Amino acid sequence: MNPTAAILLIGDEILSGRTQDTNGNHLAKKLTAAGIDLLEIRVVPDDHKTIKTAINDLRGRYTHVFTSGGIGPTHDDITADAIAAAFKVNIDVREDARAILASHYANPADLNEMRLRMARIPDGATLIDNPVSKAPGFSLGNVHVMAGVPVVFAAMVESLLPTLTGGLPLCSVSVRVEQPEGQVAMALADIAAAFPDVSIGSYPFVHQGVFGTSLVARSPDKARLAVVEARFSTLR
Amino acid sequence: MNPTAAILLIGDEILSGRTQDTNGNHLAKKLTAAGIDLLEIRVVPDDHKTIKTAINDLRGRYTHVFTSGGIGPTHDDITADAIAAAFKVNIDVREDARAILASHYANPADLNEMRLRMARIPDGATLIDNPVSKAPGFSLGNVHVMAGVPVVFAAMVESLLPTLTGGLPLCSVSVRVEQPEGQVAMALADIAAAFPDVSIGSYPFVHQGVFGTSLVARSPDKARLAVVEARFSTLR
Repeated sequence: MNPTAAILLIGDEILSGRTQDTNGNHLAKKLTAAGIDLLEIRVVPDDHKTIKTAINDLRGRYTHVFTSGGIGPTHDDITADAIAAAFKVNIDVREDARAILASHYANPADLNEMRLRMARIPDGATLIDNPVSKAPGFSLGNVHVMAGVPVVFAAMVESLLPTLTGGLPLCSVSVRVEQPEGQVAMALADIAAAFPDVSIGSYPFVHQGVFGTSLVARSPDKARLAVVEARFSTLR
Repeated sequence: MNPTAAILLIGDEILSGRTQDTNGNHLAKKLTAAGIDLLEIRVVPDDHKTIKTAINDLRGRYTHVFTSGGIGPTHDDITADAIAAAFKVNIDVREDARAILASHYANPADLNEMRLRMARIPDGATLIDNPVSKAPGFSLGNVHVMAGVPVVFAAMVESLLPTLTGGLPLCSVSVRVEQPEGQVAMALADIAAAFPDVSIGSYPFVHQGVFGTSLVARSPDKARLAVVEARFSTLR
């Protein structure tokens, strides 16, 4: 059994529609490649109680929980405090995190009171390196807390993922057939029944006026996927 | 108090990272404009029990639940059955839905057994019009079940939204300042404290090498927003 995961995206700006999230998709691809089965993505507002409740729900159900957003310097960056509350641990400015932040500013006065908020780390957490803008993320138990800004999020994912134990990477094959989904559905159901160990999906598309379907099979077993791919090809 | 909402996105292809969801963002913007407060987005796999559990959780907590995905003709399109199970009602091919589907095919034989699955509607549901490819969505209680293909999803949203009672549309103002977030955080916290009824957020950006921050205020009260906007402008 592969380890499992959920992603918790935190931010009013996603729920208002102002921001199209891309961090979820970025990490989803990385987890698939690492053999960690992503089973849920959840988006919640910048609300202390909601974040705390979601964290406690998700961390009990999945091997890993990855969060994005709410760890910057402003008043609405409340993720770290909510995580500490979820784990019932203390949170305060930590010396190593403060030193990392200080190294980012030529003028010590620039590390003002609000920026120092980014050095608030819950007791017992491990820092996640941020080579882009220094302010670190952190892991507490099985919860990994990262930034919302996509370039920083991606950098933190690169720092974190090699430290996690993955499973068998989920591989996929995809065959495009120039037939509408309803035309291949019956044959596809037969293939799905013949390969119950392989996840088989179909995704309709319209390309230059032609209705087609992408047939996709997913499994850690590449040999098995090759057999399914050959069956897919008979539907072309 | 505005009505509230959650979006449930159903599909292995989003969790594997193959597909970048855009339906959530599309509907989020529409709900904001309609005065319906979107408080959660959740992505779950094509799994009967998981969909059923999520539906029963969300429909009890929000005024509306909107789903996307899993209502096509193939074996992995299991949303309608999961919704029926969540509501403990029967599901079968419904004559009006079958007639709508039939009108889409010149050759009656094209409405095959698998395509007929798209006419399976839970007892007590109301159909949602699909002007793009006919196969309807449906509303059952406060759950609105729509397609995953973005162009079809968007068409169904247009059919559905005018039938729902909205609230005060959430408006927003945005001011870009050419200062890093940590530099304006303190002044922004003061503004947030002075306007507790207005949701105030900040989003850092880098543009042509300059670190800047977008200051965003959200409220249904436009006069109040104009006052906040003037305060934002003093930070430029």
